[in-house]
Amino acid sequence: MENAKVINLKDIKFENGFWKEMQELVRNEVIPYQSKALDDGIDGAEPSRCKENFRKAAKALRLRKSGVKTPVYPTDKWHYTEEAGAFKGWVFQDSDLYKWIEAASYSLINHRDLKLEKAVDGAIELICSAAEDDGYIDTLYTINNPAARFENLRDFHELYCFGHLAEAACAHYSATGKKTLLSAAARFADLICKEFGEGGIQGYGGHPIAEEGLLKLYGKTGKRDYLDTARLFINRRGTRPYYFDLERGETTPKGEIKYTYNQAHLPVREQKEAAGHAVRAVYLYTAMAHLARIDDDSELLNTCKALFDDITDKKMYITGGIGSTKEGEAFTYAYDLPNGTAYAETCASVGMIFFARRMAQADFDSKYFNTAEKCLYNCVLAGMAEDGKSFFYTNPLEIDPKTLAADERKSHIKAVRQKWFDCACCPPNIARLISDLGEYCFMENDDTIFINLYENCKAKFDNAEIEINGDYTGSGKISVKIKPAEPVKIAFRIPDWSDNYIFSVKNPFVKKGYAYFEINEEQTIEADFSPRIKIMRCNPKVRENIGKVAVTRGPFVYCLEEKDNLSNLHMLRLAEHPKFSFDGENIFANGYREYFSSTALYSEYRPVKEKLVHLKFIPYYKWANRGENEMAVYIRYR
Amino acid sequence: MENAKVINLKDIKFENGFWKEMQELVRNEVIPYQSKALDDGIDGAEPSRCKENFRKAAKALRLRKSGVKTPVYPTDKWHYTEEAGAFKGWVFQDSDLYKWIEAASYSLINHRDLKLEKAVDGAIELICSAAEDDGYIDTLYTINNPAARFENLRDFHELYCFGHLAEAACAHYSATGKKTLLSAAARFADLICKEFGEGGIQGYGGHPIAEEGLLKLYGKTGKRDYLDTARLFINRRGTRPYYFDLERGETTPKGEIKYTYNQAHLPVREQKEAAGHAVRAVYLYTAMAHLARIDDDSELLNTCKALFDDITDKKMYITGGIGSTKEGEAFTYAYDLPNGTAYAETCASVGMIFFARRMAQADFDSKYFNTAEKCLYNCVLAGMAEDGKSFFYTNPLEIDPKTLAADERKSHIKAVRQKWFDCACCPPNIARLISDLGEYCFMENDDTIFINLYENCKAKFDNAEIEINGDYTGSGKISVKIKPAEPVKIAFRIPDWSDNYIFSVKNPFVKKGYAYFEINEEQTIEADFSPRIKIMRCNPKVRENIGKVAVTRGPFVYCLEEKDNLSNLHMLRLAEHPKFSFDGENIFANGYREYFSSTALYSEYRPVKEKLVHLKFIPYYKWANRGENEMAVYIRYR
Repeated sequence: MENAKVINLKDIKFENGFWKEMQELVRNEVIPYQSKALDDGIDGAEPSRCKENFRKAAKALRLRKSGVKTPVYPTDKWHYTEEAGAFKGWVFQDSDLYKWIEAASYSLINHRDLKLEKAVDGAIELICSAAEDDGYIDTLYTINNPAARFENLRDFHELYCFGHLAEAACAHYSATGKKTLLSAAARFADLICKEFGEGGIQGYGGHPIAEEGLLKLYGKTGKRDYLDTARLFINRRGTRPYYFDLERGETTPKGEIKYTYNQAHLPVREQKEAAGHAVRAVYLYTAMAHLARIDDDSELLNTCKALFDDITDKKMYITGGIGSTKEGEAFTYAYDLPNGTAYAETCASVGMIFFARRMAQADFDSKYFNTAEKCLYNCVLAGMAEDGKSFFYTNPLEIDPKTLAADERKSHIKAVRQKWFDCACCPPNIARLISDLGEYCFMENDDTIFINLYENCKAKFDNAEIEINGDYTGSGKISVKIKPAEPVKIAFRIPDWSDNYIFSVKNPFVKKGYAYFEINEEQTIEADFSPRIKIMRCNPKVRENIGKVAVTRGPFVYCLEEKDNLSNLHMLRLAEHPKFSFDGENIFANGYREYFSSTALYSEYRPVKEKLVHLKFIPYYKWANRGENEMAVYIRYR
Repeated sequence: MENAKVINLKDIKFENGFWKEMQELVRNEVIPYQSKALDDGIDGAEPSRCKENFRKAAKALRLRKSGVKTPVYPTDKWHYTEEAGAFKGWVFQDSDLYKWIEAASYSLINHRDLKLEKAVDGAIELICSAAEDDGYIDTLYTINNPAARFENLRDFHELYCFGHLAEAACAHYSATGKKTLLSAAARFADLICKEFGEGGIQGYGGHPIAEEGLLKLYGKTGKRDYLDTARLFINRRGTRPYYFDLERGETTPKGEIKYTYNQAHLPVREQKEAAGHAVRAVYLYTAMAHLARIDDDSELLNTCKALFDDITDKKMYITGGIGSTKEGEAFTYAYDLPNGTAYAETCASVGMIFFARRMAQADFDSKYFNTAEKCLYNCVLAGMAEDGKSFFYTNPLEIDPKTLAADERKSHIKAVRQKWFDCACCPPNIARLISDLGEYCFMENDDTIFINLYENCKAKFDNAEIEINGDYTGSGKISVKIKPAEPVKIAFRIPDWSDNYIFSVKNPFVKKGYAYFEINEEQTIEADFSPRIKIMRCNPKVRENIGKVAVTRGPFVYCLEEKDNLSNLHMLRLAEHPKFSFDGENIFANGYREYFSSTALYSEYRPVKEKLVHLKFIPYYKWANRGENEMAVYIRYR
């Protein structure tokens, strides 16, 4: 197996491009906003109480060390609001702070900021003050009942919080070289390796991520225990008897499948279809793909390939959203992609990008970053308002705001982005991904540098410097200047939407969707990916979209909004031979609106009456930035 | 206000027609089957435990009368399975026996059967043995805790069970002239009038029906207390402070609406839109319309008209199903009529027929029985298998059986009818409606006999005998022989699907959809309603069905089944100018099936490839009689 080298975010500098702007938004708005949110300082938003918990935990530790017996509170809920001295918020509340530190750390790499660095140091100090003597950190248990730790791995997110802590620690160490958080994470990791090793607790986390956290820690520290425990967690998952049965004294009859929600229904190597909670799924698959690469485990990699293909071929919205139902925030069945009740959680698409990157690093096929790009430019970006101040949790492909209050089936859908969520997983996930995006743009193996995403940037590698300039999302033209220190191969991802691409160097070798160029001396390669406005259709097995199409251009999926096209968007129809125009951002076309003079609910069919209309499509990620209004990605056609 | 006279089921004899066959099915299969079910004698079906509860209650009463203290069990659940000596089943389990007695009584009117009459007498004896000294009957409380009666009117169905008891008692009295059950119901009614009168409990039932039960008892006994208490229940409902708040020590803030599920969100006269649990809604509206007629209360009747029109103009499936969501089994918002996740409970359509009849009796407009007919021939009839042995609870308009297990949103949908339900409201509701259908065929006011439904029958009235013969659902031709004892007016409902009707007597006076004929001597009027195969469309506000049509003929809505048309029914399309044919039951047409060679989930639009196919449509009510398979009412068109 070819093996990817580690790309260092420090070596990739974004410059004046699409994602540079987004990174600046995250740096100037999202990270400070989230910092404030973690301090419960945002009017009209649910208080996070995250830092308050760390302070309480530190205090409880101090009291106990000084011999005071601290009160015991229950540890039996997902969400805590009641008892005065006890833990507050969700069982995974700690992870908000970790994700903020991770995002802030990447941001510090991209943009030095002493004030932010100091704020991060303060947060880390707070975290360290809440660490038990043996390295354990989880404020729920430290505050409420230390004796109950690791007793409910299925529901209560200690291992999940650890995973985010480990990821944050790795990011912070990369950003600052400081080992404060890395040491804390490593001490907790050491405890986990001891407690969960052979002869210890035979369990694993109900919400995967500890696995990827351990693998990242292994990457930073080289400590094999972390790799071994990650492997143990992955291989142990879903085996019989179910650990989650043992944990609660239950027995699942042979032949019955359980714990799909927790990604623990089958041993991972026996999983052929993406199932259960979408975020949990892709977080697990990310670690599986990562481990498959490290271990050169082709069986595990093949499982990952099957799962990746199952998602992208049968279970992914055209926007890159995954998770078709709010019931368990889960995958359902092949081709079930309802527009108006989609779950399509922002975090799930973020996780899909994690998974895609790990797959690309193991398999060097362009399909992975084609998918990552789809997620990134559409579902993920839609998760954040243009001003970086409000966020979507779920990302439907069609909305009629006036129906939401009356429809429990859409209880998860919001018509406008929310300031902050009491369950605040999505905003920091967007922040940490966008801030770290440099790491996704490139990958390397022994002889090739791969360009995955075409952001304007300057990048340094051992054997070459690369500079990308151009207008990837607009004209689709980019220029890549390569200064090799020694002869090097550069592989350009050919975007799947580009069917008429031209490289200035003719006849590159094309393999698995990458165009390979051998570079022996300084050279500039121009690429023109010629984005076209495309009318896209679904496989007819997607019941809801038969007879409908979506409009795309380059990486962007477009949508109609009521502000531009009046209400009852479903009554619109794209003209059979539409005349499209493009103003650099929006797409215009001719179409028809059905009109119906009768108020009858049912009537005998008469030829439909239509009025000519001018349709305006905006990029999907820009929707809901002008207040509540209808939105639709799909429009009827022919 | 014109006022309907009471039609006596005894005077209407069905003969060799569509509904005669259904009544025979109910008599020979459903009623005996349900009798067996009530005795828990059906293999593979959930035991009802209904009669067991009555026996337990009678025993508890005997013990208490002999001075033994009986154990107290909780009365805090909707469903009871646990404690050995306690009540078992749903809080409304008693009503199953009442509904069976009601159906059996109507059946006895239609068809004398000494064995059945004896079985009914036995059941009544059992019920009477469970009556408390003051007339109270509810086995849950009598068994578990008599002191807790009437403490939770919102959830626990004492008044609901009373309502069914009263309806059964009236039916039994009509059938047999025996007052055994009528007396028991009247004693319970007397207690209710006392307990809930001015100065008493200021509440009402969380599931309406006591109101209609009291009105029917008033009809049989003439006792004004029953009318007064029904009026009190209706006028008190939804007033502030909410009784259901008071009952549980809560306060709903001003401006906030609550208890919509219980039809207690607003005073009934302020209700303009059908909302909440669909069955509860139409049961309430039935009593409201009934009371409006008795009281000549035009304000209340106008409310009923608004609610009726809101349902039929905006919230009713083409099959007559109502209740668009499983969440609260409820109405949602205007034009929200999803096909695959419809609730459309059989009982709700039965209740809609009750409501329609009460409206027709007050307003003498054909639209009410047009709606009743739609419900009857489609949603209600679909609730029962062809062999009368299995039943649907919910009635979707589209189903793909293989998706059900994977989709919590469809947890209420079954692909084949079930033998018996542990919550068994629907089968006996079908049975009691069909057995009593004679009462729906006609109505009378001072000078006119109205024919609402055209079943082959002989009917006797004070001033005329009427005989209907023909083939209403087939050729649409009927002949109505009238023997007047004195000059009489006969009004024929002109079905809304008939746009080319012909009467043998020309130029009748037509008012509100009824054709009026003055009959002075024996006369036969032939009517030809000329049913046509129609392509029906929805108002385009019904998002899911834009671009789709349904096929109907006469009162029947048709559907496609996989058995006849292969799988992926959504890929079918009706030809633009279909050539229809009709074999007396099924409809055939030419159409197209899309085919798609690519496995891609998304691809650039290319002209769709289609194969010519022969479509077979069957009446909707006949679906799912050949095992699990796909079904769809709507098909794409143009």
